[in-house]
Amino acid sequence: MSNPTVHNHSATLKGITAPEGFLASGVHAGIKATGLDMALIFSVKPATMAGTFTTNRVVSAPVMFCKERLQQGIGQAIVINSGIANACTGVAGLKNVELTARIAAETLGIAENLVYVCSTGVIGKPLPMDAIENGVKIAGRKLSRDGGSIAACAIMTTDTKPKESTVEIKVGGEKVTIGGMCKGAGMIEPNMATMLAFITTDAAVVQKDLQEALIFSVNNSFNRISVDGCQSTNDTVLMMANGMSETDKLYKEHQDWQKFVDALGELTKDLALQIVADGEGATKLVTVRVVGAVSNQEARKVCRAIANSLLVKTSWYGGDPNWGRVMSAIGASGAYVLPEMVNVKYNGFNIVTNGVQTADFSLEELAKIIAQRNFCITVDLHLGGGEDVIYTCDCSEEYVRINSEYST
Amino acid sequence: MSNPTVHNHSATLKGITAPEGFLASGVHAGIKATGLDMALIFSVKPATMAGTFTTNRVVSAPVMFCKERLQQGIGQAIVINSGIANACTGVAGLKNVELTARIAAETLGIAENLVYVCSTGVIGKPLPMDAIENGVKIAGRKLSRDGGSIAACAIMTTDTKPKESTVEIKVGGEKVTIGGMCKGAGMIEPNMATMLAFITTDAAVVQKDLQEALIFSVNNSFNRISVDGCQSTNDTVLMMANGMSETDKLYKEHQDWQKFVDALGELTKDLALQIVADGEGATKLVTVRVVGAVSNQEARKVCRAIANSLLVKTSWYGGDPNWGRVMSAIGASGAYVLPEMVNVKYNGFNIVTNGVQTADFSLEELAKIIAQRNFCITVDLHLGGGEDVIYTCDCSEEYVRINSEYST
Repeated sequence: MSNPTVHNHSATLKGITAPEGFLASGVHAGIKATGLDMALIFSVKPATMAGTFTTNRVVSAPVMFCKERLQQGIGQAIVINSGIANACTGVAGLKNVELTARIAAETLGIAENLVYVCSTGVIGKPLPMDAIENGVKIAGRKLSRDGGSIAACAIMTTDTKPKESTVEIKVGGEKVTIGGMCKGAGMIEPNMATMLAFITTDAAVVQKDLQEALIFSVNNSFNRISVDGCQSTNDTVLMMANGMSETDKLYKEHQDWQKFVDALGELTKDLALQIVADGEGATKLVTVRVVGAVSNQEARKVCRAIANSLLVKTSWYGGDPNWGRVMSAIGASGAYVLPEMVNVKYNGFNIVTNGVQTADFSLEELAKIIAQRNFCITVDLHLGGGEDVIYTCDCSEEYVRINSEYST
Repeated sequence: MSNPTVHNHSATLKGITAPEGFLASGVHAGIKATGLDMALIFSVKPATMAGTFTTNRVVSAPVMFCKERLQQGIGQAIVINSGIANACTGVAGLKNVELTARIAAETLGIAENLVYVCSTGVIGKPLPMDAIENGVKIAGRKLSRDGGSIAACAIMTTDTKPKESTVEIKVGGEKVTIGGMCKGAGMIEPNMATMLAFITTDAAVVQKDLQEALIFSVNNSFNRISVDGCQSTNDTVLMMANGMSETDKLYKEHQDWQKFVDALGELTKDLALQIVADGEGATKLVTVRVVGAVSNQEARKVCRAIANSLLVKTSWYGGDPNWGRVMSAIGASGAYVLPEMVNVKYNGFNIVTNGVQTADFSLEELAKIIAQRNFCITVDLHLGGGEDVIYTCDCSEEYVRINSEYST
């Protein structure tokens, strides 16, 4: 319906500081040995907040903290550190989050309950609080209108690229901007991919509708990607709407609501695809679509079984036209499947028809598709109307190398 | 209760031809470009048969064929080819199985319905029937009492070692032998690991009790291993009992029944562990035990989540003492877990206590354990009496390399 414009590489302000009234910074606090490891996001006035979190039963201290704080629906600053996840750290970990929030509140001169805290990195290690305190103070001094991009760099762990996105729409004829940044490269699996994402907007939005819109967008973006099938303890998406655009307050029945939801959807999908494209060791971005399942839930099972099959992912990496592994993953998915009804297309080419190799199958054609950096596999189960899609990547030796030496 | 003796490296007859009355051979039929690719097992008289098969919904033609044939509970020969799985091959694939059985029956001079057929290898390719026919004829001529070991070589795909095992027990004071061989290195996941296993015995056993004993043993062995979480289309365990030992016929109420079941259990576990130890690219054999779960099923979920986590497996490979990934996998398993109740031991050392790093935790000690070729992780959820165990391996760059170039 709407037609928002996504600016990824615009020369103007982009990412989380593109909307009016947001400042950010990225600094080296000393959590990692070298490099940026702390970001700060600040809204010049308190913003309406929404958020979604990991469904892992083992959650980090900052996730527990933010979940609780989010109940007030308002916030003004977010401190994010990379390098240490502050997960499996018990009561001490939770106290460190509270202390971080207090230090940030003092530094910024705002109420302590307006500060949110997020962490990403190695599980189990305690946060070095001296470095955190020092980092927050420097980050506070460095806050600026063009600090979005450096903040996007400061939240990276094994990411090779910062991930930002910006969308503009009109609300009541006036410009509204939504900006976002995220990180994530490994421990990425739907149901809140293993990632942190931060979204800002200068729109004014009713809190419960903002939360609903965010959940909807996250389900169609971050919850539709998988790098390695591993779910994190720290996944968090936080969104701030500070109303600085001075347009109408948006709510579900507003005439421009759908435009806003569509724009948010576009932004989150753009960010989510940036994560998959930068998956640890990934060389290919693959879209797996399943249609004709008994239900959407069954389609989801098949999507995930294909996207998370190590044999399928390694064959993509090698450019091996091994469609049999896709069939095997479909059969092992736990979904109701009649093998003799299954069709599989690669970029629109019929490769499997009724469960067997298509009569005019061309191995050369398939090998050519698999060799591309981007392709789409569509599975039709011919059973019903259920469908789903997942965006995923291949698995290379590089993934193994990265993850065999991560913590040490 | 019993104390059977496992001979893996005995100088005497071992594996599937160790029991009385079994002959075997292994030949190059021409399905693979080079090397052994066909095995034949023959009992000098019709044997009682038992079997278990993959639970994948996409199953190979030989699995469909054997499942049906097994209903008669009797058999005398098994033809096995490696190189091509004969899966996703439709009606043509099924006809090729029937034809293979017919050729074998003619070659061996036995009734066609006494022949079973198994395949392993690439999915989707048609069997080269000229090579199969030729191979069966040569294999028939080469059958011998000491052919077990060459047969164990002929069923290998990416295996680096043949896998055989032999157990002897006394039934009514007389010697009974159980022999077995198996293959499998990738596409290995519980619920019939991706593998073929063949077990022979010269005991006489009532068919329904043999089937029950086999299911019980498979559940505690082949269904308790995982290499890569991928389930195959071809998994098959077939067992033949030909009664040539001329001891009492065994049945559930026989005084030596438990001895027989224990011996079969020992043999299948020995074979299963050989598969994990030879997992594609594997450098380590890891036992994951979960106790204190709400139920055995919940314990199983946690075992599998840990054993199949790519992040956990790659950290084992790198000798990275990253216990946080184990905690994250536990939380993402879908099982009911209270993180603050969880203890994790590595080889008996308390690493995680109540969800956090143990007070006197030693990184050096943990690194030393993870560096070993064999270690055991025990998770205690402290919730109930449910428990399970799984035997698994690490994931190396070599796994990715092998599987990125398998079919071509």
